[in-house]
Amino acid sequence: MATKANSVPIPTLIEVDPFIPAPEQKGIHNRWHPDIPPVATVKPGQSFHVQCVDWTGAQVGNNDFADDLRDVDLTRIHNLSGPIAIEGAEPGDCLVVDILDVKPFDKMPWGYTGIFELHNGGGLFAREFNSRAAKAIWDFNGIYATSRHIPGVRFAGVSHPGLIGTAPSPELLATWNERERGLIAQHPNEVPPVALPPEPKGAYVGQELPDGVRKKIYEEGARTVPGREHGGNCDIKNLSRGSRCYFPVFVKGANLSVGDLHFSQGDGEISFCGAIEMAGIITFNCSIIKGGVEKFALKQPIFMPSPIDPMYSARLIFEGISVDIHGDGTQYNMDATVAYKQAALNAIAYLMKIGYTREQAYLLLSAAPVESHVGAIVDSPNACVTLALPLGIFEHDILPKEEGLVKKDFGQCAIRSDGVL
Amino acid sequence: MATKANSVPIPTLIEVDPFIPAPEQKGIHNRWHPDIPPVATVKPGQSFHVQCVDWTGAQVGNNDFADDLRDVDLTRIHNLSGPIAIEGAEPGDCLVVDILDVKPFDKMPWGYTGIFELHNGGGLFAREFNSRAAKAIWDFNGIYATSRHIPGVRFAGVSHPGLIGTAPSPELLATWNERERGLIAQHPNEVPPVALPPEPKGAYVGQELPDGVRKKIYEEGARTVPGREHGGNCDIKNLSRGSRCYFPVFVKGANLSVGDLHFSQGDGEISFCGAIEMAGIITFNCSIIKGGVEKFALKQPIFMPSPIDPMYSARLIFEGISVDIHGDGTQYNMDATVAYKQAALNAIAYLMKIGYTREQAYLLLSAAPVESHVGAIVDSPNACVTLALPLGIFEHDILPKEEGLVKKDFGQCAIRSDGVL
Amino acid sequence: MATKANSVPIPTLIEVDPFIPAPEQKGIHNRWHPDIPPVATVKPGQSFHVQCVDWTGAQVGNNDFADDLRDVDLTRIHNLSGPIAIEGAEPGDCLVVDILDVKPFDKMPWGYTGIFELHNGGGLFAREFNSRAAKAIWDFNGIYATSRHIPGVRFAGVSHPGLIGTAPSPELLATWNERERGLIAQHPNEVPPVALPPEPKGAYVGQELPDGVRKKIYEEGARTVPGREHGGNCDIKNLSRGSRCYFPVFVKGANLSVGDLHFSQGDGEISFCGAIEMAGIITFNCSIIKGGVEKFALKQPIFMPSPIDPMYSARLIFEGISVDIHGDGTQYNMDATVAYKQAALNAIAYLMKIGYTREQAYLLLSAAPVESHVGAIVDSPNACVTLALPLGIFEHDILPKEEGLVKKDFGQCAIRSDGVL
Amino acid sequence: MATKANSVPIPTLIEVDPFIPAPEQKGIHNRWHPDIPPVATVKPGQSFHVQCVDWTGAQVGNNDFADDLRDVDLTRIHNLSGPIAIEGAEPGDCLVVDILDVKPFDKMPWGYTGIFELHNGGGLFAREFNSRAAKAIWDFNGIYATSRHIPGVRFAGVSHPGLIGTAPSPELLATWNERERGLIAQHPNEVPPVALPPEPKGAYVGQELPDGVRKKIYEEGARTVPGREHGGNCDIKNLSRGSRCYFPVFVKGANLSVGDLHFSQGDGEISFCGAIEMAGIITFNCSIIKGGVEKFALKQPIFMPSPIDPMYSARLIFEGISVDIHGDGTQYNMDATVAYKQAALNAIAYLMKIGYTREQAYLLLSAAPVESHVGAIVDSPNACVTLALPLGIFEHDILPKEEGLVKKDFGQCAIRSDGVL
Repeated sequence: MATKANSVPIPTLIEVDPFIPAPEQKGIHNRWHPDIPPVATVKPGQSFHVQCVDWTGAQVGNNDFADDLRDVDLTRIHNLSGPIAIEGAEPGDCLVVDILDVKPFDKMPWGYTGIFELHNGGGLFAREFNSRAAKAIWDFNGIYATSRHIPGVRFAGVSHPGLIGTAPSPELLATWNERERGLIAQHPNEVPPVALPPEPKGAYVGQELPDGVRKKIYEEGARTVPGREHGGNCDIKNLSRGSRCYFPVFVKGANLSVGDLHFSQGDGEISFCGAIEMAGIITFNCSIIKGGVEKFALKQPIFMPSPIDPMYSARLIFEGISVDIHGDGTQYNMDATVAYKQAALNAIAYLMKIGYTREQAYLLLSAAPVESHVGAIVDSPNACVTLALPLGIFEHDILPKEEGLVKKDFGQCAIRSDGVL
Repeated sequence: MATKANSVPIPTLIEVDPFIPAPEQKGIHNRWHPDIPPVATVKPGQSFHVQCVDWTGAQVGNNDFADDLRDVDLTRIHNLSGPIAIEGAEPGDCLVVDILDVKPFDKMPWGYTGIFELHNGGGLFAREFNSRAAKAIWDFNGIYATSRHIPGVRFAGVSHPGLIGTAPSPELLATWNERERGLIAQHPNEVPPVALPPEPKGAYVGQELPDGVRKKIYEEGARTVPGREHGGNCDIKNLSRGSRCYFPVFVKGANLSVGDLHFSQGDGEISFCGAIEMAGIITFNCSIIKGGVEKFALKQPIFMPSPIDPMYSARLIFEGISVDIHGDGTQYNMDATVAYKQAALNAIAYLMKIGYTREQAYLLLSAAPVESHVGAIVDSPNACVTLALPLGIFEHDILPKEEGLVKKDFGQCAIRSDGVL
Repeated sequence: MATKANSVPIPTLIEVDPFIPAPEQKGIHNRWHPDIPPVATVKPGQSFHVQCVDWTGAQVGNNDFADDLRDVDLTRIHNLSGPIAIEGAEPGDCLVVDILDVKPFDKMPWGYTGIFELHNGGGLFAREFNSRAAKAIWDFNGIYATSRHIPGVRFAGVSHPGLIGTAPSPELLATWNERERGLIAQHPNEVPPVALPPEPKGAYVGQELPDGVRKKIYEEGARTVPGREHGGNCDIKNLSRGSRCYFPVFVKGANLSVGDLHFSQGDGEISFCGAIEMAGIITFNCSIIKGGVEKFALKQPIFMPSPIDPMYSARLIFEGISVDIHGDGTQYNMDATVAYKQAALNAIAYLMKIGYTREQAYLLLSAAPVESHVGAIVDSPNACVTLALPLGIFEHDILPKEEGLVKKDFGQCAIRSDGVL
Repeated sequence: MATKANSVPIPTLIEVDPFIPAPEQKGIHNRWHPDIPPVATVKPGQSFHVQCVDWTGAQVGNNDFADDLRDVDLTRIHNLSGPIAIEGAEPGDCLVVDILDVKPFDKMPWGYTGIFELHNGGGLFAREFNSRAAKAIWDFNGIYATSRHIPGVRFAGVSHPGLIGTAPSPELLATWNERERGLIAQHPNEVPPVALPPEPKGAYVGQELPDGVRKKIYEEGARTVPGREHGGNCDIKNLSRGSRCYFPVFVKGANLSVGDLHFSQGDGEISFCGAIEMAGIITFNCSIIKGGVEKFALKQPIFMPSPIDPMYSARLIFEGISVDIHGDGTQYNMDATVAYKQAALNAIAYLMKIGYTREQAYLLLSAAPVESHVGAIVDSPNACVTLALPLGIFEHDILPKEEGLVKKDFGQCAIRSDGVL
């Protein structure tokens, strides 16, 4: 018929099943290493889909307890789909990546946000809260997410890949491992650890490999937690569907990998597993600018944001400074991290006034399209950071009122089955 | 005639002359202290104007050299107008401040952005750049600013008070001084200093005072550089005209002071004197929510932003991580300040590719409506911070192009008359 | 496994095949009539998908000629999926419809925008241009559309149902038919006709029906072209995925029908088949407010727009007044339609200066996220209407320049195979 | 001192006093005619202020009765400041006008919105409502307006000139007069009249002129009510401070005139005197593009909107179609004006449900930053127009609720002293 002719679906370069543990699947890897061969090759200008499991590789379920989150094996994250080689890309080029769409699988219309234990994963307030596992399950209804564990809110997702990057060169990989080992050496026995060195346990590359190559990758491969010069786990919520990103290329073919898809995330992703984590499908179109690293002074990725990120213009904004005003009052020296934390604690205190538990508030700040700006970073000794709650995500009016705030009962999020909080 | 009847101008509670040095004027003070008496009192619900000198109190001129900036006496800043008592405000209340407008004096339609010397004031990159004084003069044309020292850009100002706050109680003042002295003790001889202790030299309160009171204020009064629990020098660009701010009240009358008006500023205000500094007029309307500190868990101000902040939706965004990739490659531990700096250095490198000098780029990032978000703050060891350049402020297209970037000649900003850079 | 449990896909209430002509499919109808029985029933609060063929029911193909468009049988449009009954809805209630998502079929990632012939369908400029069939095929790449027939643009879709409404009561249907017949009687022999009366030819209801009922529906059923009190073919681009709409209910169950999905559309949809027409899947969640018609004075639907409609803040805006300044100079009397047309003709003239053909410009204004505002409607005798071109959809800078506009060669859109234009 | 040097205020080219009737002031005119000499000349690139009286020239006062509005002498409007010649402008050029700012006089911080009588001025619903004079006085507090006559709302102004244009050539003037006389001839005795012919009574040019020239201007000068090819009374709210406008030039010097300043206005300005009318100061910067009329196909002005127009993203949107569903049910033929009116009536009915009187609702839709889009203009016979109420302007939540809308008591606006409504 008329409409069938020339109807060519966008090809899927990597297929996975979100219900099967990552280590049983092809096209997945969980370490960064230049020797991981591409599992697919694509021409510049060709749109394509890549399917991704959730970052844990199917370790977390849609249920009302947080035990699975407590027990996540973090040596096995993040499960990335790739690498994908782009024809013609060479070191020193700029890989232009159009992120055309990011969406969940139809068969798995839900995701989760989690608080990890202090001793397994941590999070921004792991020590302050002596964190125990907790989570919220989010249901996806088209562009919106809602949660039975955090009633009273509904928001449109800024869907994005938490983790996307090109493969490092051997030199770059060595640099990473060296500098991170240096930091670990300065802070031994920190809980949670300040950084993670290469670790063969849990390492995985879902393709046929000569034993020696696999061994090398597992022993040297950089862990996936931090963002680095190639992109990586930047967790930038605005690197979302519709954005255009410019990556430096370090190896022939660029070798793009992606995973850790997020339905939504707040700036900061504070609870560590703070986005709405999901399995899903990401759609790309790539092109190459020869010599782009030099042309654009490209030490790290740069990008143009999407025209369709949610527009919640009415906001309530919390300030934080680099003094521990929620704790012992310590004065820090121009520390934006402390300032961020104080702003977040101010917001959590406010959300608790309207009835959310501390865990719900922590999860909500992590998952909702919250914006955090660096206000000022030169007014010694106090960095000032703001955190903005979008008012449009709440079902009721949460603004300050003459008569005070109405405290509702929103229950509690999913916690451990032993009730430990 | 018909139109004259009932035309009642909004009253001006504090008048100053932007052309006269601050120490010769009334209604100005430059230290925070509970014993500074209010210079005016206003009823809740009454709109009023407050005039302000620029933050240096007329030390910087509209000329093409940066010598005046090099020589600014920093013991004499910031010059604040106030305090203004609001009838009925008591400790524990919340003071609601509508910032109704912020604008320059008609007779002084210009402002400046400055880089301070490493040894006098500093700035985010004072050490990296071994900063020497430099500046840009900005002309105000209605809602827009342009500069002969940074050609090729024009932008709408997010006009705001850099510094606004309620007076501290004696207890709060003591807390500030103690904790900041502690930090100074930890970092003696730092250049620039990590914090500034009370300093009678340069202290000023422009009203009649018993000698003992004046002496006490000058000896104990907190310096104005950092933002603190009462607001203060937060330099939050979105606390702009049209915003509504909720301040905690610490003394009877609240005693609101304001100054350091900015025509525009980028998130971070990185060059220290990084906003477009101006003298001008701010318009307020205040009200009180009794017991608001408890009602809203108010450890610091919270606010709702303005509906008229400039909308530059197309942006080019730079990423930064907590590794010194522009320097020696040091790995920092989840340090958002370092991440911010790296994002800014990436942006400066890009702006230099299109022809701006390093000084121009540094000033432009400070002064233009640049946005900086905390992307992720839990991906150990790398905090990830982004910095977004609004494309609409540039007269020409600065996006990455296949053929590379066109490098134009934008001259140089104002530097020292001895040519030292 | 962990992730599979409780993964319940959103159910699809109506399935169609976009490659099969509408008259061969179930669950489709193309007239409005209270006697069309619901094909599915849903409980309030249950999300569900509805699949839709394109508005012509598979009459238009992905090819480079416009012959199929020239020959579209307009007695067979619009093909709507439905009706769907919502449990508990009664006349006088308000049906709250959350439009959760609107997207194309994976297997048909393209759509079309068409100009219809003066003598078959028409369009806003059918007479002025003596329109001949022309079209543009758009490829969907995630959130973006591009066209080989209109190079140089790429934009994010404001995806929405062109046509959505509740079923009319017998009384409402009678009112429609009577008032439209009255208009037809006043303008006999108009080309294109001013309105379309009920027409059994081409009428279709894709379900088993007693002959008498089918005959009644075909003879009395209102045509689908205009929007009416129940919604209908409103072609409001901002009634898009993410919006919440409040419909009056006229029959038991409300009987919601939907179709004519648009990937994108400009305000006005000027070329008649002016949106990017597509087959696809729409996702809903409905609830009921008892007595809502009275509660909200609901003579027609009202709605809240989506937070994710594309944000193209930089625009070039054309004005039009109710004088035929592109034709014979006739002065009209406060006629916003004429003003709209003049604004559109001004924009078309501008687009032709940069190299688009008149047909391409006409199609682009129809399909892109163009905004048209009623500026003033009281300044006798001239209504003033504006039409805003979003600058961000163009690959190159189209703003007025000192040196004039660069005219590029963008080829031509798809026209008839006989070359008649 | 440092700051005084080089502080050069922007010059004011035309000064007026808003408290003195327009006919007693210089630099004002109220007809369009090529023979009105410029009152000032400016070089391209020079910023300048122009002061303007309100459109009636001081006929309306800040009081609580509408008698002055009832008695406005409409032969004496609009009072424009100008003309101002721009050096070097010639017919066929494009005059680029940067509207840098628009603000009220400090000494007159208020404005008004009015409903005119059916027999004097009219308005969109003059006949439907058999309008009697009514008004609302608005107080300006920085960027915001509030009204004692319409409590419960506060909004940021989209301040703009309602009326701005270049002088017509003799030929263009003749065209206007001829075509409008033609329309009047077709509709004799209409109330209110469909258009206004030249009228010496009330005509005014506030400068020395030879008698013959003055007589010619008064007898031939075009009335100022409608917008035309030169701009004129377009009442486009987004031609606001911060916008850049491109005007066609018809006479040597371009001869720009401006007046009818609005603090705020809704799309449509429906009550005729529907904006918040004010006296004030507008700031311009002009430049010339030679031959711009041909270069840009410039039949009418085009413009780029401001980056600082208020952002009220949450809205409640009303639909209207070209059927008189609020009256006798007449079906109109693709009439966007009727559709606009129905959308407005739907909104008025809704606002009355929450407690506003019909007059208050009519005034509010006229004055607030309401947006009206032409939804669809090709779905015969019904044009579809939408009207969007910004939710952020209301002090309380006005969204549809399960339990219905709360009806408050907002009193009434100012009406005639005889109480006739």
